[in-house]
Amino acid sequence: MTRGPPGFCLWLTGLPSAGKTTIGKILIERLAARGWYAELLDGDEIRRGLSADLGFDRASREAHAGRVAFVAKLLARNGAIPIVALISPYRSSRAKARAEIGRFVEVYVSTPLAVCEQRDVKGLYKRARAGEIKEMTGIDDPYEPPEHPEITVDAVGRSPAESADYVIGELERTGWMPTAR
Amino acid sequence: MTRGPPGFCLWLTGLPSAGKTTIGKILIERLAARGWYAELLDGDEIRRGLSADLGFDRASREAHAGRVAFVAKLLARNGAIPIVALISPYRSSRAKARAEIGRFVEVYVSTPLAVCEQRDVKGLYKRARAGEIKEMTGIDDPYEPPEHPEITVDAVGRSPAESADYVIGELERTGWMPTAR
Repeated sequence: MTRGPPGFCLWLTGLPSAGKTTIGKILIERLAARGWYAELLDGDEIRRGLSADLGFDRASREAHAGRVAFVAKLLARNGAIPIVALISPYRSSRAKARAEIGRFVEVYVSTPLAVCEQRDVKGLYKRARAGEIKEMTGIDDPYEPPEHPEITVDAVGRSPAESADYVIGELERTGWMPTAR
Repeated sequence: MTRGPPGFCLWLTGLPSAGKTTIGKILIERLAARGWYAELLDGDEIRRGLSADLGFDRASREAHAGRVAFVAKLLARNGAIPIVALISPYRSSRAKARAEIGRFVEVYVSTPLAVCEQRDVKGLYKRARAGEIKEMTGIDDPYEPPEHPEITVDAVGRSPAESADYVIGELERTGWMPTAR
């Protein structure tokens, strides 16, 4: 007896180290506290589960985004809220995900490159600048920012918790989610 | 406010043309009528979504079963009932799926080879016998029947609807599902 309100997908896109995963984890907590099933589809974990065979060239990134979108669609149509935290640098991949999933909220975590590179959570920018890794988004691979995202999060002047709360507020304001009592 | 009773995975295994997909579709209807979110993860559709890159050799089948198990885990832990309809011929793949998913009900659709070959829903047995396709489970690729499935469905003497109802009855009897009022 578990059928409730319909789910939808929160698709967080942005540069590496923009804050997608950190904000996503807090969103999961917030949504769970409101009684929703929510699932973080995070870049690294979901690559192990679905795309261990794929690299980081454009075709591989597109194939991976396609698989993630497929899984997000299944979760959303079963009443859950999948939260995708994926660089997903190409507009075309995100447009395909939107078309496939239907109930789709694109969240642009707009942290600028200079800030992301200073954070460099995984040390990837440093390695890319040193030429040790190739196809690094923002360095030698393009990032195409969303043109009309449902939500833009400026995560520079806010803590991750404040960014998550901003997203929740926007979901309430635009009717995706009932206002908490 | 959608959190309800925990989900679990129904994993239907059996030879090609055993009746897995047909029974799975009816199970979806039965579960939906009882208010559950249920999702059929059927061989062909989910291959397009997750594993367009994979063939039918042993390594590919195992990789595919691993991806399906990953998705089934996500659905089940978000309160839905994924129904996997997959030949999944190897005991090792099914054991891995069981370990990953946790709440796992293995359903063996035990239709014997001779009956499956006579049905030959997709014409694959005929093509395999003619040597037009290779790696056909039951012909030139092994099928390892479950040793201790939670449920065995003898789909030969029953209609697909009767088989589905038998599965539902077994789920009620063993406590996986509340008895319908």
